[in-house]
Amino acid sequence: MTLKLGVIGTGAIGQEHIRRCNNVLQGAKVVAVSDINVEGAKAALQRLNIEAEVFADGHDVIKSPNVDAILVTSWDPTHEDFTLAAVAAGKYVFCEKPLAMSAEGCRRVVDAEIKHGKRLVQVGFMRPYDAGYRALKKVITDGDIGEPLMLHCAHRNPTVPESYDTPAAITNTLIHELDVLRWLTNDDYKTVQVVFPRVTSKSHAKLKDPQIVLFETQKGVRIDVEIFVNCVYGYDIQCEVVGELGIARLPEPSAVQTRKAAQLATPILTDWKDRFIGAYDVELQAFINDVKADVLTGPSAWDGFAASVAADACLKAQVSGAIEAIEMPPRPAFYDKK
Amino acid sequence: MTLKLGVIGTGAIGQEHIRRCNNVLQGAKVVAVSDINVEGAKAALQRLNIEAEVFADGHDVIKSPNVDAILVTSWDPTHEDFTLAAVAAGKYVFCEKPLAMSAEGCRRVVDAEIKHGKRLVQVGFMRPYDAGYRALKKVITDGDIGEPLMLHCAHRNPTVPESYDTPAAITNTLIHELDVLRWLTNDDYKTVQVVFPRVTSKSHAKLKDPQIVLFETQKGVRIDVEIFVNCVYGYDIQCEVVGELGIARLPEPSAVQTRKAAQLATPILTDWKDRFIGAYDVELQAFINDVKADVLTGPSAWDGFAASVAADACLKAQVSGAIEAIEMPPRPAFYDKK
Amino acid sequence: MTLKLGVIGTGAIGQEHIRRCNNVLQGAKVVAVSDINVEGAKAALQRLNIEAEVFADGHDVIKSPNVDAILVTSWDPTHEDFTLAAVAAGKYVFCEKPLAMSAEGCRRVVDAEIKHGKRLVQVGFMRPYDAGYRALKKVITDGDIGEPLMLHCAHRNPTVPESYDTPAAITNTLIHELDVLRWLTNDDYKTVQVVFPRVTSKSHAKLKDPQIVLFETQKGVRIDVEIFVNCVYGYDIQCEVVGELGIARLPEPSAVQTRKAAQLATPILTDWKDRFIGAYDVELQAFINDVKADVLTGPSAWDGFAASVAADACLKAQVSGAIEAIEMPPRPAFYDKK
Amino acid sequence: MTLKLGVIGTGAIGQEHIRRCNNVLQGAKVVAVSDINVEGAKAALQRLNIEAEVFADGHDVIKSPNVDAILVTSWDPTHEDFTLAAVAAGKYVFCEKPLAMSAEGCRRVVDAEIKHGKRLVQVGFMRPYDAGYRALKKVITDGDIGEPLMLHCAHRNPTVPESYDTPAAITNTLIHELDVLRWLTNDDYKTVQVVFPRVTSKSHAKLKDPQIVLFETQKGVRIDVEIFVNCVYGYDIQCEVVGELGIARLPEPSAVQTRKAAQLATPILTDWKDRFIGAYDVELQAFINDVKADVLTGPSAWDGFAASVAADACLKAQVSGAIEAIEMPPRPAFYDKK
Repeated sequence: MTLKLGVIGTGAIGQEHIRRCNNVLQGAKVVAVSDINVEGAKAALQRLNIEAEVFADGHDVIKSPNVDAILVTSWDPTHEDFTLAAVAAGKYVFCEKPLAMSAEGCRRVVDAEIKHGKRLVQVGFMRPYDAGYRALKKVITDGDIGEPLMLHCAHRNPTVPESYDTPAAITNTLIHELDVLRWLTNDDYKTVQVVFPRVTSKSHAKLKDPQIVLFETQKGVRIDVEIFVNCVYGYDIQCEVVGELGIARLPEPSAVQTRKAAQLATPILTDWKDRFIGAYDVELQAFINDVKADVLTGPSAWDGFAASVAADACLKAQVSGAIEAIEMPPRPAFYDKK
Repeated sequence: MTLKLGVIGTGAIGQEHIRRCNNVLQGAKVVAVSDINVEGAKAALQRLNIEAEVFADGHDVIKSPNVDAILVTSWDPTHEDFTLAAVAAGKYVFCEKPLAMSAEGCRRVVDAEIKHGKRLVQVGFMRPYDAGYRALKKVITDGDIGEPLMLHCAHRNPTVPESYDTPAAITNTLIHELDVLRWLTNDDYKTVQVVFPRVTSKSHAKLKDPQIVLFETQKGVRIDVEIFVNCVYGYDIQCEVVGELGIARLPEPSAVQTRKAAQLATPILTDWKDRFIGAYDVELQAFINDVKADVLTGPSAWDGFAASVAADACLKAQVSGAIEAIEMPPRPAFYDKK
Repeated sequence: MTLKLGVIGTGAIGQEHIRRCNNVLQGAKVVAVSDINVEGAKAALQRLNIEAEVFADGHDVIKSPNVDAILVTSWDPTHEDFTLAAVAAGKYVFCEKPLAMSAEGCRRVVDAEIKHGKRLVQVGFMRPYDAGYRALKKVITDGDIGEPLMLHCAHRNPTVPESYDTPAAITNTLIHELDVLRWLTNDDYKTVQVVFPRVTSKSHAKLKDPQIVLFETQKGVRIDVEIFVNCVYGYDIQCEVVGELGIARLPEPSAVQTRKAAQLATPILTDWKDRFIGAYDVELQAFINDVKADVLTGPSAWDGFAASVAADACLKAQVSGAIEAIEMPPRPAFYDKK
Repeated sequence: MTLKLGVIGTGAIGQEHIRRCNNVLQGAKVVAVSDINVEGAKAALQRLNIEAEVFADGHDVIKSPNVDAILVTSWDPTHEDFTLAAVAAGKYVFCEKPLAMSAEGCRRVVDAEIKHGKRLVQVGFMRPYDAGYRALKKVITDGDIGEPLMLHCAHRNPTVPESYDTPAAITNTLIHELDVLRWLTNDDYKTVQVVFPRVTSKSHAKLKDPQIVLFETQKGVRIDVEIFVNCVYGYDIQCEVVGELGIARLPEPSAVQTRKAAQLATPILTDWKDRFIGAYDVELQAFINDVKADVLTGPSAWDGFAASVAADACLKAQVSGAIEAIEMPPRPAFYDKK
């Protein structure tokens, strides 16, 4: 039985997800979409050669009796509202990050979901679906390197647009690590500190680049994340876990090795879309399968809330230069993994 | 519009392909199957939770008006017959390797297809669909390493069963290289020689292991392939292309790097099924898409014939110890790539 | 003309240097030694099959008219006194680290040397003589990676004895990085902070292990050094320099790569003596050559002082948990490189 | 006691060895040299700032009572004569390769040495002194990869001069592998075959480049050596030993790894002199030490003879295209390792 999906927001990511659901994945079909630009939505569907009902208002997608589950890929400030509406309607909803514009907003979704009595919300953090991170987590979980003590991470982009400013390093870039490192270590953040190295000459006036973000976790693990978004040389994600018995490192993407022009080399990706492309397919297929099995297992509203709480503390630490506490309330039993 | 598939033979590979088509890929559905063991076929469908008509005779699958295209995954000696029948019925057919039990048998399929006037047959060589080989081919085609002059290859298995004998090194193992290296270099074999190193103590009486197979191609490229099927340490596929300007190497599978117990290490796979698992999905999805687009682009009956001609010469060279000619007729224009 | 050396202290390092000078290096010969244990010194010379005058008091070595230059390899607390005496005698002196037991002590050597009017002292920091660090420095100096912005370093030992405590992580271990990183980046430290991850279960009561030491330099470069001396898996020195245009990494020691037991692996050293063995030869040969050329170019008394000032601040930061200033006076013109 | 050396031939290699003995190594000193160009020899000594007696005739060096041991670094065709003269004089002699211009010539040296009753001759094969080959041999000898079954080797130069022709691939290039692979595997060659891939467009009229040389050894090991001397990209020596339990690979030279311009890369050397520079020092130091200990352990006249016999068969195989026998007489007990 095919799952009928409604997609709210037909911008770049929305179109990607529509194409993915209808042309790549199994078991689901987009039957309705909405966008404030109705004509744009229609044109997009035509380009994709997909037939679906088109609404101007996302709430109509949620209400449509023809729609089983919702994908929220609209303008960020509308995420919370649509997700709350989906929960109110008792429909499963996959909401692209961020779940809301503030930790308080995320908390409202959490509270609504708990009140509803059943997990309905998955947040679009895709790194836990990346084969590399999964292999890394398996090494940790299998005990191959003993208890984790430190993580050394880096998130590097070749360049960013002028609109990207110092806080964006947290909200646009680090946000991925904020989620995936919690998942990887099965731990929560306790404190954060941000330090600013010498600024690269490749940056612009509103952006201090690079930055180093230093966490202590509840278990005492120390995590350092280098964020360097004008690193010029490529899109490069590094994660090294230092354990009591050894060290494990996130796989480099598989690539042809050449011996050429006095260099033994493998290419480094330059476009982030190439890096995690496979993970998006796995993520959305998992959502579809979970909805059909009637039990969500992916990143939850609570995970969205936790990332948001941590991000807020990071932003505070960027300004204060001090070690800031990350005040994370205890996880409700509702979100315990079965 | 969903492509309706009929699967002849519900052994291990047949079941894998049924699962793949119905649960992983897009745009096709298995609607009929056959097996000489009808009860076994029914049980398999039940395990897979798939509904399909079940026949005792593969020819009934081919004749069924409900079936658009055929997958031949039956006992090897029956491949030629079913493929010829599918061609006679004007239906697209994906035939697992080998296409036939002899070069003559493959030639009969080629002739039938040409007589029919349109490509209908794809042979189940999956390595050209592997992301690593595709990346390697791109490096060559882009001219990054200049004209290829030599290929150094290895095909290693940790162990093989007692039934695997010296000729099986060609027909079971080298057969993959025979196909993929023609595709990789866009070239054809001219001569072959087989040399036998000292036999590993891990082998058994009927198997000379390892073997080295040496080819010269039409363009003068020299290829050496080490076949070592009791190498103990893992399943390892190596391919290095030496060109006029540099060298390119088939990517190692992506893996977590560890520093542990005085070693900097990445795991090597031990099961061949893990190595090319992704390629099977890509291969069959491509067949489905091509059938729906009404033009086949994958490994052709001619490619099946070419691999068979080369394999026959390899078998002769195993026995003679001499340099054997590979008498490959010119490729019919029918098989030129558009 | 052979340089005649006097060696003060014939313990393990002293014997190593005597062997090195007489059996490996060119242009020098140990002609006199001293040790508070005269019989031990005599026995050591006999084992090494070397003839030299033996004194009970290092000052007699310095005074001996037969001795051209001094190696101080005695008990740490005596280094300053012997080095000052050598300077007073106008003799070149190679002093194993530490130059003195405090920054003040190092400063006294600096002042004495400046007063003397010519560089006479080399401190036994050997990493700048390691081929790997030299290659790394060349990449930086050549501008291959642009201006350095961050350094990520690690100093890992498999295990340490019970006598090694928390401050020893600075004075025994980090001291090498304190010197080599100044040299590598041609920069000075400005602040330091020490953070303590979860303690490994492999440590003992008096040692918080691992530790992370975070520096800001005068040029604004951020340096993190992981010190992990019960890492179990090996002796491993890592140094990654992140520049504006790219990243350069300290070479791994050259090693045989194996494919074995489902692993692609290279060995990691476990004994620190194997890691920098070559550097000791280069270091002492350079000292000998420089003395004969009458101009020292290696690590100076000022470098010894700078490392000591930084180490003191690190020790303070271990206790305070705060960001501590490293109050480094400006370098006297006397120590400018010609 | 310093060993007094006489050097016959003060060309490039001669000067290098003079510099090495006098400025780098321990325990020896060049006291006499000869060259047919006496003025050139004097000028060379002056440049090197070394005082030594200068003769026009190498035989005068050998006869000089002031000379303990001889280095032959003269024009290749004179090697045999000078080595025989040294043996006749009962003096240790280090002869640069080739030991003689033919296998017969080498045999004459062997016979003379046996007749003399004691090993006096070391041939200048330096690869067994390379740290990488030694580490590789240790892995084999330790049994880490089980019994060797196959070796895959490559010897690549970026370019060669016009004077380098097809046979030079054997006599100038492969000659190093001919020696080191016997030493590495403790085995002897039985047959050889040469195959010629498509010729690179970077070669010139008199040189078929690349070539592949295929050996079978007495123990049945199969060895393939790719010789590619216009490979453009670098000077690259590869050696992979496939054993019953695993594979071991000659270490790549240690180098700085960079992430830059969308590539993860390490440099490849381009000048052969940089590749084995350290091995020359070790080789000559070992000769000096062995002479002083009065027992030679390095590559013997027999090893020179064996390489020459193999080279002759390779040259024959280049022309015949056939599998040629390598008729190696049994090793005299005189050359058994103690």
